[in-house]
Amino acid sequence: MNAEIVCIGTELLLGHIVNSNASYIARKLAELGVDHYFQTTVGDNPQRLSSTIRTALSRSDIVITTGGLGPTIDDITSKVIAKTIDRKLILERAVLKDVAEYFRRQNKKIPKDSLRQALIPEGAKWLKNSFGTAPGLIIEQGAKILIALPGPPREMGPMVEDHVVPYLRSRSKAGQILKSKSLRLTGGVEAKVNQKVKDLLRLSGPVQVGIYARLGEVELKVMAKAKNEKAADNEIKKLERIIRKRVGSYVYGVDEETLEGAVGNLLAKRKKTVAVAESCSGGLLANLITNISGASDYFKSGIVAYSNDSKVNDLDVPADIIKKNGAVSTQVAKKMAAGIRNRANVDIGIAVTGIAGPKGATKKKPVGLVFIALSTKKKSNCRQFNFSGLRTEVKLQTAQAALNMLRCELL
Amino acid sequence: MNAEIVCIGTELLLGHIVNSNASYIARKLAELGVDHYFQTTVGDNPQRLSSTIRTALSRSDIVITTGGLGPTIDDITSKVIAKTIDRKLILERAVLKDVAEYFRRQNKKIPKDSLRQALIPEGAKWLKNSFGTAPGLIIEQGAKILIALPGPPREMGPMVEDHVVPYLRSRSKAGQILKSKSLRLTGGVEAKVNQKVKDLLRLSGPVQVGIYARLGEVELKVMAKAKNEKAADNEIKKLERIIRKRVGSYVYGVDEETLEGAVGNLLAKRKKTVAVAESCSGGLLANLITNISGASDYFKSGIVAYSNDSKVNDLDVPADIIKKNGAVSTQVAKKMAAGIRNRANVDIGIAVTGIAGPKGATKKKPVGLVFIALSTKKKSNCRQFNFSGLRTEVKLQTAQAALNMLRCELL
Repeated sequence: MNAEIVCIGTELLLGHIVNSNASYIARKLAELGVDHYFQTTVGDNPQRLSSTIRTALSRSDIVITTGGLGPTIDDITSKVIAKTIDRKLILERAVLKDVAEYFRRQNKKIPKDSLRQALIPEGAKWLKNSFGTAPGLIIEQGAKILIALPGPPREMGPMVEDHVVPYLRSRSKAGQILKSKSLRLTGGVEAKVNQKVKDLLRLSGPVQVGIYARLGEVELKVMAKAKNEKAADNEIKKLERIIRKRVGSYVYGVDEETLEGAVGNLLAKRKKTVAVAESCSGGLLANLITNISGASDYFKSGIVAYSNDSKVNDLDVPADIIKKNGAVSTQVAKKMAAGIRNRANVDIGIAVTGIAGPKGATKKKPVGLVFIALSTKKKSNCRQFNFSGLRTEVKLQTAQAALNMLRCELL
Repeated sequence: MNAEIVCIGTELLLGHIVNSNASYIARKLAELGVDHYFQTTVGDNPQRLSSTIRTALSRSDIVITTGGLGPTIDDITSKVIAKTIDRKLILERAVLKDVAEYFRRQNKKIPKDSLRQALIPEGAKWLKNSFGTAPGLIIEQGAKILIALPGPPREMGPMVEDHVVPYLRSRSKAGQILKSKSLRLTGGVEAKVNQKVKDLLRLSGPVQVGIYARLGEVELKVMAKAKNEKAADNEIKKLERIIRKRVGSYVYGVDEETLEGAVGNLLAKRKKTVAVAESCSGGLLANLITNISGASDYFKSGIVAYSNDSKVNDLDVPADIIKKNGAVSTQVAKKMAAGIRNRANVDIGIAVTGIAGPKGATKKKPVGLVFIALSTKKKSNCRQFNFSGLRTEVKLQTAQAALNMLRCELL
């Protein structure tokens, strides 16, 4: 079985709202193991909507629409569906009763416009809307299934959970399920990771791997289709082992884990404390670390030493070292890291200094040049990076690289 | 002229990400006055992608695709476009040079896979990607226009602004234009602003007002359709005056301006310097301030005093004041603000202390309780806030409120 999603609403075409319904339903279909090849968005125009539904029914087993079931004159979905599949529009008394009841609960009379919502295509099964007045519809048309859902996510979501998922599960033959697991990587570029797992990305069939890149981060998603959860988990485990063998050192976490969360877990586990000294990242590193609940157990303090005075006064960087090497230098980064470690009396001090841009670059020190130093009681090291992008992107890559150095130190 | 958007990526069909590109491009088309009737999403499948592009070209004047231009094996857009419109794929040396340059800036060799990105359909005009390696494409095919853009929003957005909007503007025949201006508000809740401009939100016709709410922020967008820019500007000006009369004190900026940018401008204009002391916001306030290029002119330093020790040692808060009132209190906030102002030798010190949650609350001090203090040579004041939401949401509202206090102080 394969399905197709049709989102209806001129407001989507005007860009007033982001279409979150499509991704919500897509995720549900994936979890059910139902294939899904197309999503279309159309406005409240009868001809274009009708032709879109006709095309969808011609190429997919299941067509799911959202939107256009409300009480206003713009809401044309029921009418257009009826016309497209050649059925009459009839007044469904049970829907009328349900809509009237909805208004009665609010001590209101049913508005005249809402009467239209009880007009549905003949033979359609209607779905109760627990959070609004627009009923959902399931229409079986030969071997095809047409499902119409309301547009507002808070009405559509519960209706999918309560009615559509059970219905589709009962209709799907074999009963395959799809499971997935994401491995999250940092510290390598997309192309490098891509190169190492290229063959896996070409897998087709019941087990597949997808690659998704964000700034400074790559996600490898392993997806398995199988008869049951256990079989799917087994398939995923096999592939995960292969991936970790090739790019394991870049993997910081799985699924919804964040780099700052992974680092936080390591700090808590190793019972180490940390403090940060930031110049070009301007507080972002501390901000990320403190996004994790419980960070106060291991994060003690951060100093955003933006001016040279602050580097001298708050981090004990000798003024002559700044003068000799410049504020953006290995030497200053190392002094900053040692300074914050001593000041905050912690196990690990991390410091960053660099040029976030777009101003402040010199011939020898371009935008994106960043030094990150890590200081412990036993050692001190510093790495040089050359990032590119906007100011905020250089900041983000800097903070991520610092978190990754911290992670590697703790491993 | 009418346009159609085709979003390409199996990750969209799997619901892994919400499709924000479609609404972004839709908004740009609306601003250009270009009609737009369909959006389609397809996966990385050559047959289905090709048939989707063919359908789109048959019914629309302009087809804009996003996604599938990256270096990986999944990225098939250029190849499929070339095949669909019957052109050869050629190696464009200028693209190759640009991609190589991108990696050279990062002191990296061009990965083998990235070479594929220089293969583009013959006769295509390529668009420079300032934030990645995937070039955009503009292809004129008879009277039709095909535009291919990269998928990542941070690459796609600037390319649309810099290349696609000017190109489409030059191609569109006279007619009507649509202009808009956004007023950005903070410090009031959405419902309050909504109440005051309710009648304006109901305007229909050539001038309209939209309201969009984000956490701690409201955007009022005035849109005018007119024969030319001047007429549209006039209509917008009229409505802006009315809005400012009603809610002017909440307006911090217009269009793409950010609160931290507006505050930065004020600091620069008044020649004032600032330093921040943060507890619950954990560095976010410093991070926002330093997102603005040129912040080093007015921002001197920040201290993230997460532990009580740090509040005492780095900000000179007397330990007995913490003991007596607790770290989350007016008294401690005020001492922190005075402490950072003295330490950093700046005109204004701002300090925040609060409970970001989800842990750390007590009966008397619930999650979301935040004190923000502002200290100058002449005075010191402190405000109490009660925010709600997730940990990161409390942090964001805290930082915004602090920026707004700073803004009001500077006005």
